[in-house]
Amino acid sequence: MTYPNGKLSEEKVFKDPVHRYVHVRDKLIWDLIGTSEFQRLRRIRQLGTTYLTFHGAEHSRFNHSLGVYEIIRRIIDDVFREREHWNQDERLLCLCAALLHDLGHGPFSHSFEKVFHLDHEDFTQAIILGDTEVNHVLRRMGDDFPKKVAEVIAKTYENKLVVSLISSQIDADRMDYLQRDAYYTGVSYGHFDMERILRVMRPREDQVVIKHSGMHAVEDYIMSRYQMYWQIYFHPVTRSAEVILTKILHRAKYLHQEYYSFKQEPVHFYSLFEEEISLRDYLRLDESVIMFYFQAWQDEEDTILAELCRRFLDRNLFKYIEFNPNSQMKMWMELTRLFEKAGIDPDYYLVVDSSSDLPYDFYRPGEEEERLPIHLLMPNGELRELSRESEIVESISGKKRTDHKLYFPQDLIRNLPDSCKEKEKILQLLEQVDH
Amino acid sequence: MTYPNGKLSEEKVFKDPVHRYVHVRDKLIWDLIGTSEFQRLRRIRQLGTTYLTFHGAEHSRFNHSLGVYEIIRRIIDDVFREREHWNQDERLLCLCAALLHDLGHGPFSHSFEKVFHLDHEDFTQAIILGDTEVNHVLRRMGDDFPKKVAEVIAKTYENKLVVSLISSQIDADRMDYLQRDAYYTGVSYGHFDMERILRVMRPREDQVVIKHSGMHAVEDYIMSRYQMYWQIYFHPVTRSAEVILTKILHRAKYLHQEYYSFKQEPVHFYSLFEEEISLRDYLRLDESVIMFYFQAWQDEEDTILAELCRRFLDRNLFKYIEFNPNSQMKMWMELTRLFEKAGIDPDYYLVVDSSSDLPYDFYRPGEEEERLPIHLLMPNGELRELSRESEIVESISGKKRTDHKLYFPQDLIRNLPDSCKEKEKILQLLEQVDH
Amino acid sequence: MTYPNGKLSEEKVFKDPVHRYVHVRDKLIWDLIGTSEFQRLRRIRQLGTTYLTFHGAEHSRFNHSLGVYEIIRRIIDDVFREREHWNQDERLLCLCAALLHDLGHGPFSHSFEKVFHLDHEDFTQAIILGDTEVNHVLRRMGDDFPKKVAEVIAKTYENKLVVSLISSQIDADRMDYLQRDAYYTGVSYGHFDMERILRVMRPREDQVVIKHSGMHAVEDYIMSRYQMYWQIYFHPVTRSAEVILTKILHRAKYLHQEYYSFKQEPVHFYSLFEEEISLRDYLRLDESVIMFYFQAWQDEEDTILAELCRRFLDRNLFKYIEFNPNSQMKMWMELTRLFEKAGIDPDYYLVVDSSSDLPYDFYRPGEEEERLPIHLLMPNGELRELSRESEIVESISGKKRTDHKLYFPQDLIRNLPDSCKEKEKILQLLEQVDH
Amino acid sequence: MTYPNGKLSEEKVFKDPVHRYVHVRDKLIWDLIGTSEFQRLRRIRQLGTTYLTFHGAEHSRFNHSLGVYEIIRRIIDDVFREREHWNQDERLLCLCAALLHDLGHGPFSHSFEKVFHLDHEDFTQAIILGDTEVNHVLRRMGDDFPKKVAEVIAKTYENKLVVSLISSQIDADRMDYLQRDAYYTGVSYGHFDMERILRVMRPREDQVVIKHSGMHAVEDYIMSRYQMYWQIYFHPVTRSAEVILTKILHRAKYLHQEYYSFKQEPVHFYSLFEEEISLRDYLRLDESVIMFYFQAWQDEEDTILAELCRRFLDRNLFKYIEFNPNSQMKMWMELTRLFEKAGIDPDYYLVVDSSSDLPYDFYRPGEEEERLPIHLLMPNGELRELSRESEIVESISGKKRTDHKLYFPQDLIRNLPDSCKEKEKILQLLEQVDH
Repeated sequence: MTYPNGKLSEEKVFKDPVHRYVHVRDKLIWDLIGTSEFQRLRRIRQLGTTYLTFHGAEHSRFNHSLGVYEIIRRIIDDVFREREHWNQDERLLCLCAALLHDLGHGPFSHSFEKVFHLDHEDFTQAIILGDTEVNHVLRRMGDDFPKKVAEVIAKTYENKLVVSLISSQIDADRMDYLQRDAYYTGVSYGHFDMERILRVMRPREDQVVIKHSGMHAVEDYIMSRYQMYWQIYFHPVTRSAEVILTKILHRAKYLHQEYYSFKQEPVHFYSLFEEEISLRDYLRLDESVIMFYFQAWQDEEDTILAELCRRFLDRNLFKYIEFNPNSQMKMWMELTRLFEKAGIDPDYYLVVDSSSDLPYDFYRPGEEEERLPIHLLMPNGELRELSRESEIVESISGKKRTDHKLYFPQDLIRNLPDSCKEKEKILQLLEQVDH
Repeated sequence: MTYPNGKLSEEKVFKDPVHRYVHVRDKLIWDLIGTSEFQRLRRIRQLGTTYLTFHGAEHSRFNHSLGVYEIIRRIIDDVFREREHWNQDERLLCLCAALLHDLGHGPFSHSFEKVFHLDHEDFTQAIILGDTEVNHVLRRMGDDFPKKVAEVIAKTYENKLVVSLISSQIDADRMDYLQRDAYYTGVSYGHFDMERILRVMRPREDQVVIKHSGMHAVEDYIMSRYQMYWQIYFHPVTRSAEVILTKILHRAKYLHQEYYSFKQEPVHFYSLFEEEISLRDYLRLDESVIMFYFQAWQDEEDTILAELCRRFLDRNLFKYIEFNPNSQMKMWMELTRLFEKAGIDPDYYLVVDSSSDLPYDFYRPGEEEERLPIHLLMPNGELRELSRESEIVESISGKKRTDHKLYFPQDLIRNLPDSCKEKEKILQLLEQVDH
Repeated sequence: MTYPNGKLSEEKVFKDPVHRYVHVRDKLIWDLIGTSEFQRLRRIRQLGTTYLTFHGAEHSRFNHSLGVYEIIRRIIDDVFREREHWNQDERLLCLCAALLHDLGHGPFSHSFEKVFHLDHEDFTQAIILGDTEVNHVLRRMGDDFPKKVAEVIAKTYENKLVVSLISSQIDADRMDYLQRDAYYTGVSYGHFDMERILRVMRPREDQVVIKHSGMHAVEDYIMSRYQMYWQIYFHPVTRSAEVILTKILHRAKYLHQEYYSFKQEPVHFYSLFEEEISLRDYLRLDESVIMFYFQAWQDEEDTILAELCRRFLDRNLFKYIEFNPNSQMKMWMELTRLFEKAGIDPDYYLVVDSSSDLPYDFYRPGEEEERLPIHLLMPNGELRELSRESEIVESISGKKRTDHKLYFPQDLIRNLPDSCKEKEKILQLLEQVDH
Repeated sequence: MTYPNGKLSEEKVFKDPVHRYVHVRDKLIWDLIGTSEFQRLRRIRQLGTTYLTFHGAEHSRFNHSLGVYEIIRRIIDDVFREREHWNQDERLLCLCAALLHDLGHGPFSHSFEKVFHLDHEDFTQAIILGDTEVNHVLRRMGDDFPKKVAEVIAKTYENKLVVSLISSQIDADRMDYLQRDAYYTGVSYGHFDMERILRVMRPREDQVVIKHSGMHAVEDYIMSRYQMYWQIYFHPVTRSAEVILTKILHRAKYLHQEYYSFKQEPVHFYSLFEEEISLRDYLRLDESVIMFYFQAWQDEEDTILAELCRRFLDRNLFKYIEFNPNSQMKMWMELTRLFEKAGIDPDYYLVVDSSSDLPYDFYRPGEEEERLPIHLLMPNGELRELSRESEIVESISGKKRTDHKLYFPQDLIRNLPDSCKEKEKILQLLEQVDH
C-alpha cells in the first residue's frame, strides 16, 4: 500500500479538550497514530512529576502530539494554502514531523536523560529511521521520506520555513503545550489568542512571520509562556519530586554496580545502567514500568532506595529553602558535614536544584543555543524583530532568570533523636524554611 | 496527636480544573490525603479504558475524590451551616466519607470486579477499618470514628441526611464526576449549574432536598447525566477496550490454572486467581502494575494472551455491530460455529457486551436497588418527588435503556486466507458493520 | 458597482464573544453591514425587557444577525462545499438571508407587535424590497436578487434546502440565539456542541438533515432550547416588565385618542396609534426613542402613564401569582371588582399573562403553524424523523406547555390607606404570593 | 425604617456572567440598587463608543457597579473577616462605596466631560449628598453615613485601608472592569486569576497588601491591564467614534450659541451648553436621550451637524493615520490649509487624538497624580513594593506610552470632484493610510 495523497473515505476526529476536535483526513496520519511506537506515548506523561503538584496534570505526550499536529494542520489548510512562499508539497511532511516530534521521549525524560546521559531527540531519529512500525508507514510515501521527516525534526531540513513551523520561538509545539498544560493543571495562565496568531502567520522564504497587526497577541503569548515556566514548569514542589526520582535512579544504578542483590531485579534497567541501551529496550520503557519497579523497591533492604521509593509513591516530598550559590556555599558545606555526622547521606538527602529560563531572545549568532527571533511583517512589507516593536517584549528580552533551591527531608531531620547533637544545628541552619 | 477541631495554621489549597480550588482547613483531612492508601488513587484512572476513546480522560480517582470532598465542604460550610436540621458535629464525618468514598477502587475496577468477583465497596470498608494509615489517622478522632465513616459510605449510618449527601440521585459524587469527566474528555455535555444546585440544597431530617426554585437546574443535571452515560460511559469503543481487557484477565487466569509456564509469572495475580486476595496484596495492585504485565505478556508464547495484550497496548480494538439478543441469537450461534472452524476462538474473539442505564427513578420500595428519589421543597413547605413536578424528568423516569453490541476482531477475520471457506460467510454475516 | 463574486482584498473580522470571530470575505456582505438599516439593529435589544431580569442581557439584534450569518457561512464554506445536493450558486443568497432575517424588528418587538398589530416579518420584506440602502446594495447582484432574499426569509423560495438552513427546528437562527442569550445572561443552559452539529449537517434535495452519529448533540440542543425558554425567555420577571411596557403603550394610545394634551407629544407614535405607519417612520423607531419618551412621560399629569413609566425605568415591577384560568376566573373577577372599588384601574394593574412553548414537534401537516421536523440520516441512507430515534426527544415531542400568571402592583395595594375596606380583601386573595 | 445590620429574610442573587452570581444579603444594599439614580446606570454604557468597534461591548455601568460590589463583598466576607487590622464595622460602608463609586457617570462620559468641562466624580458626590433617593436610603444608617460613603469614594476617608480597597492600582474597580470588558468584547486578554488575588489580599493598617506567594497572579493582572488598554480602551476605531461624538457636541453647542434654529431643539442640553447644569437635569441625561437627539439631528439643515450625526449612527467613521506631533506638525498645518480650501471644515474633519497610559507606577510623591503602589507582604512580615520583586513589572514601571493619530473622513475627500485641485494633494499627504 502506498499513499501519496491518500485520503480517508470519511474524516476521523478525536475529541480534544484544547482544540475541541483534532481532524485527520490523510490515511498516512491515521496509520502513524495507530503504530505501537506512537501509542506508547499514552504511557508517558507530558509533564513528568508535575502531577504531584497539580493533580490535574496527568495528561500524556500522546495528547500533546495530536495537538501539535492539529495546529500545523490548521496553519497549512486554513492559512497558508495558496499563499506565496508556501509549497503545498511540503504539507504531509510537516504534518508527520508535527505528529512525531516527541516520539523519542522516555518516561520522566528530564530525570532519565540527566542520570543516564540520554537524549530523547536521538531516539526520535532512531525510531523514525530504524526498523519500526512508524518507519514502515512513512516509507510508503517514498524511500527518503522518513529521512526528510527526521531532518525537519532535527532542524537540518533545507526548507527553513518548514523547520520554523515545528521549532521556533512561536511554533506549534509551544502553542500547544502552553494551552494544554494550563488546561490540565487548571491555572489561568496559559491563555492567549492562538486563533488570532494562526490567522496572522505568513509564510516567507525561510521562516514563518507574523503580521504586525497580531503583535499584541504575540506579546500575550510570550507573557503566558513566561508565567507558565515559573508557575508550573519550575514549580519548587515539582522539582522536589524530580530530585527524589533522580536520586532513586542514582541509587539503583549504584546498587547494581555494587552487585547488590535486589528482591526485584532491575531487568529493564540493565542496559540503561551500562549506558548502551538498544532501541528495542528503550521502547519497552514507559512510566508504568518505572512505577512498577518503584513500588516493588519499597520493600528492598537497602533503606535509601526503599525510603526514596516510598517518598515518591506516597508524595512525601523534600522541603526546600532558597539557596544562593554565591553567598551560601559555606552553609551548604557545613550542612553536608552535619548530615553525614547525623547519619543522613547528603548525596541523597541534601540537594541543590537550579532552574533557569530565557523568556524570549533576539538573535545572537554563534551562541550556545541560537534561537530564531520572531519577526513581524510590517504594513510596508519590511520585517522587524519583535523586541524592536514591542516594549513589553523588549523589557524581558535576553534576560535569563535563574532560581536555586536546596532540598532536604524535614521529617527525617525532625525524627532524629534529640540526643543527636547535630539535630538542633541543622534545624537552625534551615530555619528559613517557609513552606 | 488528636484533633477534634484541629485546624491547619494556614489553609492549604489544591488547584483543581473543575472547582478552581480545593480548600483544606482541617488537619484531619490533610493527613488523610497524605496516607499511602489515598495517594494510591493517583495510580488508578477514574474512567478505566475510556482514555482509549477520549484521549483526555487520563485523570485519576485521586482527583475525583478531592472534588467530592470539596463539594461537600461547600455545601456544609456555605449552605448548611446554621440551618435547622443540620448538626455541625457531623461536619468532619461527612468530609471524611466524601474524601474516602472510592478508596477501595482497584485498577480498571469494572473489569476486575466482574472477572474476579470482587466488590470495591468491600475494600473501602476494609481499608477504613483495617490496619492502615487511613485507619490510624481516623482513629485520632475517636475509636469509633472509622466505623462511623465506613457506615456513612455503606449507607447504614443512622443519620440519613448525612448518607444522602454522599449517596443519592443527586449527590456530591455524581455532581463531581459528571463535570470532571466532561472536562477531561472535552465534551460539551456534563455542564449544569452546580453552584445553583448547591445554593438551593436544604437539609431535612432524613435527606437533602432541593428548593423548588432550583428545579430547572436539577433537570439540567439529570439531562447531563443521561448524555454522559450514553456519550461517554457506555461509548462502544470504550467497551471494546474493556472487552479485550476482560478477556486478557480470563486468559491469564485460565493459563495459570492450566499450569502454563509464563515468561513473566503473574505474581501479583496469584491470590486474585484463587479469589482469596488479602488487603495488603490488593493495595499493591494499581494500573502501573497491570500495564507492566500486559507489556511483558506481549512476548508470551500463548498467542491468545500475547495477541490480546498487544491489541490493548496498541489500541487495536475489536469492531462491533448492533446486536439484538432476541432476534439474532441464531446468527450469533452460527458465527460461533464459524469462528471455531476458522480457528478463531469465539470465547475470546466473539463477545456480546450490554450496557443499560436508568436515568432517574422515583421510589420503588423493595426493588433490587432502591434509589432514593429527589424531593423538591415547595414554597408551602411540602415535599414533592421531582418527576411529579418536572415534565422532562417525568418523561424519562423509570425507563431503563439497554444497548447490546457484538464485538469481534475485524482484522483477524480479514487476514484469514481466502482459502478458508468460513471467511466469506463470516464477513457476510457481519456486513452490517458501519464503523 | 456590481459584485457577483466580489471579494474583499483582505478578509474582515469582527470579534465575537460567541463565535470568537465573524469572518467577512464578500464585499456584498460588508456593504450590507454598513447600511443604515442594518446599523439600526444596534439600537434594538435582542431580548427586549430581559435585561431587567438578567442584567447582562443588553446585547442587540445587530450581534445576533452577525452570528447567524457566521453560522451559515461555516456550514456552507466548511461543510457543504462540494457536497452533492448543494449548489454553490446559492451561497451569497443564503448569506444575505441569514444576515438580514431579523432586519424588520422594531423596539421591544413582542409588545409593540401585540399592541399595534404589526408584524416584523412584513417590515423585513418591506426593507429588502423598498427604497432602502439595503435594497440598493442587494440590487447590484441582479434586479431579482432582493426578491430572492426576501423569499428565502419568507420561506417561499423554491429551493427548500436553502429555506431550511435559515428556518427550521434546528436552524442557524436558533443555534445562534440560544448560545448568545446564554452567554450574555450568564446562565449555564444554552450550551450544546454546535461545532459537532455543523459537522454532521448534510444537504439533501429539500432540507438539511443530520447524520445519525450526531443525534446526541441534537438532543442536547433541544434540551438546551427547552431550558432557555422556561428559564430565560418566559421568566416571570421579564414578563412583568413586558406587561408594564404594554400597558404604557396602551395608555399613551388611549390618551392620544382622547385628545389628552401631552407635555411631550408622542410625535414618533402618531402613525403607530393610527395603525398606518410608513416604512420611513418605522425605521426611525428604535429603543432610544422609546426610552426617551418613557423618561419624558414620567412627568405627565396623567398619573397612570407617569406611574407606569416610572415603574419601567426604575424597575419597580409588578408582582405575580400563579393563575389557573380554569379554576380561578371567579377570583379574578372578584379582584377586578375590588381593584375598581379601591381606585386602582384593573385594566392597567391586574393583568393575566400567558406563555407557552412546544419544545419540538414532529410533522403535523395542515396545522396552524407547520413545523418542519428534524430528520436523521441513517447509516443506510434512509431518513428518520428525530423523535422516532431519540427517546428523550420523543418524550417531549408535541407537548405544549403553558403557564399563566396574574400580575399586580403589590406596593400600590400595600400603600392603600387601611381605611380602604377592599385592601385587606385584596391582600387576602393574593396571599399566595411567594416572590 | 432604619437598618444597621438589617438582613434580608432571604438572600437575593443576580445572575452575573463574570462573577456567576452577585449576592445581596443586606437590606441597605438591596434598597440602594432599587433607587432611580442607580437604575439610571442601566442606560449608560460601560465602554462608551467601544460597541462600534467590538459589537459585544454593549454592557452598562449598572453591571459593572454590581460587579465591584460583589468583589468587595467577597474580600470582606470571605477573606478579611476576623483578620487583624480589619474592622468589621466598616463593612457596609465599603459595600456602599463599591456599589456607588460610578454613580455620577453621565452618557459617553469621556467625551461629555471634555466638551462641557464636567467631572463625573463631582456628580457622584452630589448624588450621594443631595436630595436623592440614594441619599435617603443611606441616611437610614445615620445622618453622617452619606458623607462617609462620599469620602471613601473621594479618597479622603480617614481609614486608608478602606480607601485602598476601592481605589488603588489593584482595586475591585479595576479587577471587575478588566474581566467584564474582556467578557463582553470577547477578547482573550483580561484573564487573570482573581480568585487567587482575593485569597492573598491582606488588610494592613493603611492599605491592602498582597501576600508574596500571589505575586505572579498580580503580574498577570498588570499585563492583562496593559493589554486591555491598548487593545480595547485605546482602540483607534473607538477613538474615531469618540472624535465624531465630540465634534457633534461642539457643533450643537456652537449652533446654539449662534442662535441657530434647530428642528429638534436641544432642550436637554441647554444647561450643559451654558455649563451650569443642575443635578436634576444631569440625572435626566442618559444615552437614550443622546441617541434620540442624534437621530433627530440627522435631518437638521446644518450640514455639518446632520452629516456627523449620520456618521455616528450609521458607523461611518473617520479613517486615521499615525501622527507624530514632533515631526509632522508641518504636514498637519498644510492639510488644514488644504481642507479649508477644499471646503471641508478642518475644525470638525481633521482631528488629532492622543491616548497615553502608565501601566504601573511606583510611588512618586508630589506628582500630578499620585498613584499608590502595590505592596507585597514578604514571608518575614516586611512589605516590599511590587516592582522591586517582579522583573516583569519592573520592566514596565513608570513608563508612559503615548499614541497619536490623525483622523479624517476619507469618503468625503474621495468624493471631492476631481476638478478640486486640493483633492490629489490631500490624498497624497494621507497616502500612508493603511486601514
